[in-house]
Amino acid sequence: MHTTLRSRGDEVVIGPDRPFCVIGERINPTGRKKLAEMLRAGDLSQLEIDVREQTPAAAVLDVNMGVPLADEAELLTRAIRLIQDLTPVPLCLDSSVVEALAAALEVYDGKALVNSVTAEDERLHQVLPLVKRHGAAVIGLPNDEDEIPDDPRRRLELARKIVDVATGTYGIPVEDVLIDPLAMPVGADTSLVMKTLETIALIRDDLGVNMTLGASNVSFGMPDRHAIGAAFLPMAMAHGLTSAIMDARAASLVQAARAADLLLGNDPWGGNWIAAFRSAR
Amino acid sequence: MHTTLRSRGDEVVIGPDRPFCVIGERINPTGRKKLAEMLRAGDLSQLEIDVREQTPAAAVLDVNMGVPLADEAELLTRAIRLIQDLTPVPLCLDSSVVEALAAALEVYDGKALVNSVTAEDERLHQVLPLVKRHGAAVIGLPNDEDEIPDDPRRRLELARKIVDVATGTYGIPVEDVLIDPLAMPVGADTSLVMKTLETIALIRDDLGVNMTLGASNVSFGMPDRHAIGAAFLPMAMAHGLTSAIMDARAASLVQAARAADLLLGNDPWGGNWIAAFRSAR
Repeated sequence: MHTTLRSRGDEVVIGPDRPFCVIGERINPTGRKKLAEMLRAGDLSQLEIDVREQTPAAAVLDVNMGVPLADEAELLTRAIRLIQDLTPVPLCLDSSVVEALAAALEVYDGKALVNSVTAEDERLHQVLPLVKRHGAAVIGLPNDEDEIPDDPRRRLELARKIVDVATGTYGIPVEDVLIDPLAMPVGADTSLVMKTLETIALIRDDLGVNMTLGASNVSFGMPDRHAIGAAFLPMAMAHGLTSAIMDARAASLVQAARAADLLLGNDPWGGNWIAAFRSAR
Repeated sequence: MHTTLRSRGDEVVIGPDRPFCVIGERINPTGRKKLAEMLRAGDLSQLEIDVREQTPAAAVLDVNMGVPLADEAELLTRAIRLIQDLTPVPLCLDSSVVEALAAALEVYDGKALVNSVTAEDERLHQVLPLVKRHGAAVIGLPNDEDEIPDDPRRRLELARKIVDVATGTYGIPVEDVLIDPLAMPVGADTSLVMKTLETIALIRDDLGVNMTLGASNVSFGMPDRHAIGAAFLPMAMAHGLTSAIMDARAASLVQAARAADLLLGNDPWGGNWIAAFRSAR
């Protein structure tokens, strides 16, 4: 299945037979105190640096303007306009505030990826109509009012619910629904990564949709985080993960994804691998 | 299932719930012209350097003395005595010459890993009696007189044949039979790695035995080989690989295996990961 995202100048296709889609996570004030302060003061100048540092490794950029006590819709629309003037890369519009997503979709020029909707009934019926109206794609998180389930089969059920409501109730094409299999910190419980991998394989085999997840979550709280991420990505890709929201500035992480592309047959004749090697010398 | 190897001073346990078993590949004249010349002249002095460079990352050392026009049995027995005086690490006795394996097992002090036997009838009935007599463990390669099969199910059949003959005919404990799922160069055919991963999962699910493979094969002929290997190992481990014969001198490869241990729940509380991080600083 192929998910196509578009910006003014660029088109990105996500799919199991395509090179892994790297979504840059950096444009996000969470854990970035200085950026949060700048954004609260209306200063978006840091974004130019963030865009430059993440491209060209990132095929898509996540944009999150979730700053406490700020007008998120206003910041997000300003950020989108600014970033679309800086880069042709498609954007992932990231907010938990429905009004911010609605405003973002109004100003975005192209076919965006909406991050995200959960399997909660209220969220589904708030977010999916926006996705449908703007012809966007959406990331679905398999948690509902009651729980973030650990059990892969329960996550699959909730993912199926999201796909069913999106396609059945709102007529969103199934290829425009991505599922986030939920990556958990290995430092919290070392059995959780296996559950994420099982969830990925179940969703691939039963739903066949594209998937993305926050790869940095896995290494949260551990030392040498990039080395953990560089081992996680090939594992997850071999189970069916087709995209990740990740640190696109980390050469070791991007290289791990490109090596896994090669190993999984998504880099015919090794052309991308050899070209990357030559350009790095 | 747990495979235990022993040397004079050391015991190594290989298993799916244990840290990945790194077997150092370096003591091998294949592709090392200078070492081959030294060995042919009876000079084994390089082995001390090779041992030092591979330990402590390697839990086991592969020893191959296959030099054309040399007395392999004599070289191999000398090498084993020398190496066992240098290190307490168990050894993997690597030869395609049955007489060399027989001589090696005579002098080895401990419980060795024999590398290897194929599914060819003649080889099975030459090698397995030696393995049984010395209480060793053995690596079985799923190829026979006719073919090195690409099809994972055919590889599983041949692996099952090796296990059946080893346990049924010769009374070797099943935990002392490791299967090599056969890693092929991705540069030759980019679909072959997926077949190796499928073979690994089939052998894990159907036979449950430990596995090892020559990890360096995968990147043969490609640039930046360690980066490819560092992506391959976590994939293979997530499918059930419990050991690899690999470049134990490459920090990036060893780190990938240790990160995968953490992610797969074989490094409780991340103790090994955190200790390695601290000692590297």
